[in-house]
Amino acid sequence: MKYCPNCSANLILRTPEGDNRARYCCDSCNTIFYQNPKNVVGTIPVYEDKILLCKRAIEPRKGKWTLPAGFMENGESSLEGAIRETKEEAGAEVTIKSDSLYTLFNLPTINQVYIFFRAELSNLEFFPGIESEEVLLYKERDIPWSEIAFPVVKTTIENYFEDRRTGSFPVRMFTVNHHRDRTVSTVLISASDVQSTDRNRITEKATSS
Amino acid sequence: MKYCPNCSANLILRTPEGDNRARYCCDSCNTIFYQNPKNVVGTIPVYEDKILLCKRAIEPRKGKWTLPAGFMENGESSLEGAIRETKEEAGAEVTIKSDSLYTLFNLPTINQVYIFFRAELSNLEFFPGIESEEVLLYKERDIPWSEIAFPVVKTTIENYFEDRRTGSFPVRMFTVNHHRDRTVSTVLISASDVQSTDRNRITEKATSS
Repeated sequence: MKYCPNCSANLILRTPEGDNRARYCCDSCNTIFYQNPKNVVGTIPVYEDKILLCKRAIEPRKGKWTLPAGFMENGESSLEGAIRETKEEAGAEVTIKSDSLYTLFNLPTINQVYIFFRAELSNLEFFPGIESEEVLLYKERDIPWSEIAFPVVKTTIENYFEDRRTGSFPVRMFTVNHHRDRTVSTVLISASDVQSTDRNRITEKATSS
Repeated sequence: MKYCPNCSANLILRTPEGDNRARYCCDSCNTIFYQNPKNVVGTIPVYEDKILLCKRAIEPRKGKWTLPAGFMENGESSLEGAIRETKEEAGAEVTIKSDSLYTLFNLPTINQVYIFFRAELSNLEFFPGIESEEVLLYKERDIPWSEIAFPVVKTTIENYFEDRRTGSFPVRMFTVNHHRDRTVSTVLISASDVQSTDRNRITEKATSS
């Protein structure tokens, strides 16, 4: 940011009084411009023992496989946004149950929060949206693990198939860190069904970026 | 927004090609400015059978009681943000367990998402930060229910004391709607321990704004 969006004066990056972080400040119209993380919302669209994946038609990770997800918009809930993105990217209608909230990821290095919901395909009508090259139903054994676009997607799919075996789908929150050597590590920071023996167990997985 | 923060040209509010919503667009430097919901993160700081509440020293809702919470910042996780806000607003150090994620609220009418974590006070040293007039530990029977600042805070405290009786703390997601007649309604849209008989049960509570 260089210019004030309200009055076009030059912005100054400084710490406002009573604050402890540098912000873009306009001393002409006395406005402070805060910058905050954005939410990305999506679903795991399930049909019988299969999940729906989209092959990305755009960068980043063009040609890799992902779950339908995108930026949450003003005026919608995270769940509404996830359903909208599923329609936009996979051409799919989904139904939602009352325990749909599933995984949350903090990505502090890129200022994003991902939220995934479990969803069921309403029918077998789906088609690639403008950001997808291809949309396919995958059984667990056929998942293209080495071709998954993002660590948040891989972790969510792994958890889904693991939880499916027990029939219990706890809500899990992770922090994903992108390191300087281009590796990415995922740390579980909260889970809704944590047993007392597991309370201090922390899972960390490093994958190449 | 009137002026481009990059080049100070006049912005135009229009739907970009391939999009379906109006955005602030700069035709001078070809930039689209997206506006997205912001996250507010906070804790329920617990000590024995009591919770810590802050009396607001600032608007909105000056003089009303709230849980320590504030806008999530770039570069931090939601949990780190919640711990930071607890220090800033209540002067309190907290410890977190592995099942700390507790309530999530979508507030689509004001473009916010609230996330609360359960936390335990590390000690009895706490003091009002710059945005608080007073910080007090409250037993359930003493909670000033009619003086709670926000519906998200009231719902979180109600759920906490209810769950405390069973020892089970499911993660719950709500949507909060602000209506034209100044009432506010809170709808449960997802909970991690939903029983099959409860799957279609929806809770809606209307409170005055």
